[in-house]
Amino acid sequence: MAEMMKRIALAERPKGEVGPEHFRLDQTEVPTPRDGEVQVRVTAMSLDPYMRGRMDDVASYADPVPLGGTMEAGAVGIVTESKDPRFAPGDKVFGMFGWASHGVLPGQQLRKLDDRAPMNTALGVLGMPGFTAWAGLTAYGKLKAGETLVVAAATGPVGSMVGQIAKSQGLRVVGVAGGPDKCKMAVDIFGFDACVDHRAHGSAKDMRGALAAECPDGIDVYFENVGGPVLGGVLPLMNLHGRIIVCGMIAWYDGAQDEVARMPLANLWRMALVKRLTIQGLLQTDHVARYGEFLRDIAPKVTSGEFKYVEDVVQGLENAPEAFMGLLKGRNKGKLIVQISEE
Amino acid sequence: MAEMMKRIALAERPKGEVGPEHFRLDQTEVPTPRDGEVQVRVTAMSLDPYMRGRMDDVASYADPVPLGGTMEAGAVGIVTESKDPRFAPGDKVFGMFGWASHGVLPGQQLRKLDDRAPMNTALGVLGMPGFTAWAGLTAYGKLKAGETLVVAAATGPVGSMVGQIAKSQGLRVVGVAGGPDKCKMAVDIFGFDACVDHRAHGSAKDMRGALAAECPDGIDVYFENVGGPVLGGVLPLMNLHGRIIVCGMIAWYDGAQDEVARMPLANLWRMALVKRLTIQGLLQTDHVARYGEFLRDIAPKVTSGEFKYVEDVVQGLENAPEAFMGLLKGRNKGKLIVQISEE
Repeated sequence: MAEMMKRIALAERPKGEVGPEHFRLDQTEVPTPRDGEVQVRVTAMSLDPYMRGRMDDVASYADPVPLGGTMEAGAVGIVTESKDPRFAPGDKVFGMFGWASHGVLPGQQLRKLDDRAPMNTALGVLGMPGFTAWAGLTAYGKLKAGETLVVAAATGPVGSMVGQIAKSQGLRVVGVAGGPDKCKMAVDIFGFDACVDHRAHGSAKDMRGALAAECPDGIDVYFENVGGPVLGGVLPLMNLHGRIIVCGMIAWYDGAQDEVARMPLANLWRMALVKRLTIQGLLQTDHVARYGEFLRDIAPKVTSGEFKYVEDVVQGLENAPEAFMGLLKGRNKGKLIVQISEE
Repeated sequence: MAEMMKRIALAERPKGEVGPEHFRLDQTEVPTPRDGEVQVRVTAMSLDPYMRGRMDDVASYADPVPLGGTMEAGAVGIVTESKDPRFAPGDKVFGMFGWASHGVLPGQQLRKLDDRAPMNTALGVLGMPGFTAWAGLTAYGKLKAGETLVVAAATGPVGSMVGQIAKSQGLRVVGVAGGPDKCKMAVDIFGFDACVDHRAHGSAKDMRGALAAECPDGIDVYFENVGGPVLGGVLPLMNLHGRIIVCGMIAWYDGAQDEVARMPLANLWRMALVKRLTIQGLLQTDHVARYGEFLRDIAPKVTSGEFKYVEDVVQGLENAPEAFMGLLKGRNKGKLIVQISEE
């Protein structure tokens, strides 16, 4: 009997919070590759906040997942059959296989992995999240030694890379994370100068006070991945010529409408003018041409141990929905990965 | 008897709209210059929207005018007495003399005028407004031939320069102005491809429809000087990687709270992310080091007639308050100047 492929489909579009009813696990036969295609047994897949956006039927920078379609994800795996001469069975690759145990993709959509780093790093520190941080800071950060940078989700794969890059360039780096354990992790493992616990400072006003205490010279660069009260606390502390890189806003993906979400546009406009801020949207796909440069810069720092990374590995594809819901609540510690089969 | 100096002081801070009660005309003796200072008879002064901000007692990019202090303004005049060896009686100069008929300033705060252009051009097309347009576009516009730029107050000294610079670089240029006469002026005199009458399109929705008709390929660059419904119409039409240069927001200086002013910050954040917009605050004083470059680039185009300018000259310092109130309502046509004495 042919090996079966498990996958998780979008069963229903969420209105507000994501629940188990929005996902459906099903099975089909593993597809056979045609000319130019490669069949892969997936070993691990990535869970990332952007996937929440794909569940909604609204125009964004990418099309939504269709109802009944496989949830989108980057994944690593091992080639089992190849009709592309550049790949052979046993090769380790990265590709967008979605929430699935197997997959077939055109060879040109796959990237062969470097053997010097563990496979799963291609999902986090050396994958899309690490690249997002690097691309955003190198393209838009204009980092200067002595300045202050703030980033939330500080122990996540984007935030921890943002912090480590900025720190290596001589900035004061202040993180925001949920709970004392993550804050300790940001400082002890990732080398942040300080980390503010957003659970202890739930309003924009409280957050502002806590950040002001850790940012005595104000904030020059804010790498935005949360929105919500953190943004509300950051805005009044931004320095003249400050830069805000808008990479995500996880606090608002569920449609939550907090006080900061409702802040009048005119207020932001005045701040932008008075402080001559730069507010810059960031999507890593705009920068893919520099992926090789990223790997040459960062991979040696990761393999040497200069840059740290932390992975939070969940076992089994069937546990992906619960892990994803936890991610949206900030329950993971470090890069969230679902291990689907053995390497 | 010594000649008297007339000046207009801030009598009261406005709450909302500006009225005549907020100003007071008074007289004092013309001050005597000390070492390094220069005494000037002012011939003309500039009226600009930024002065509205100086009337409020709130932190901005500059200190407010103190109660009873002379209203701020750039002005041109003729040196009457000099204790700075670089200036001699009869020299034509520019300086921040305020709303006043005479003044004394340190020589280092004055700029000698080039005789090739009329004196009053140093207040408009070759002065701060023209420089604001040039500095904003050259520093942040990233103009590319074939793109579309939108600017409001299209017949004003900033808007008309923005339009002419963009047009000379091969962009489609669409203006917004109040009333059919100004719209005709934008097209016929300043060479805009089209101009939308904001009086005929008072809501953000109407403005969006009117702009969409004139911007079939969307909007790549928006030079923001008004806020209000124009901004509301522009935002949904912004293209991927669009740039918004925030230079002013005259619609909101009186504290008006229209639907666009109240647009939730979260909506803008999503737009910035999805379209990877750049939103950049602009203040010309950040760029003064490039003033010479601006004059070398633009002054020959003005004296040759390639770049047009229109001045709206009001006679007499005592009429400055009324002219300023008219400016805030968009009643002037072209650069508003108060002629105070003969050249």
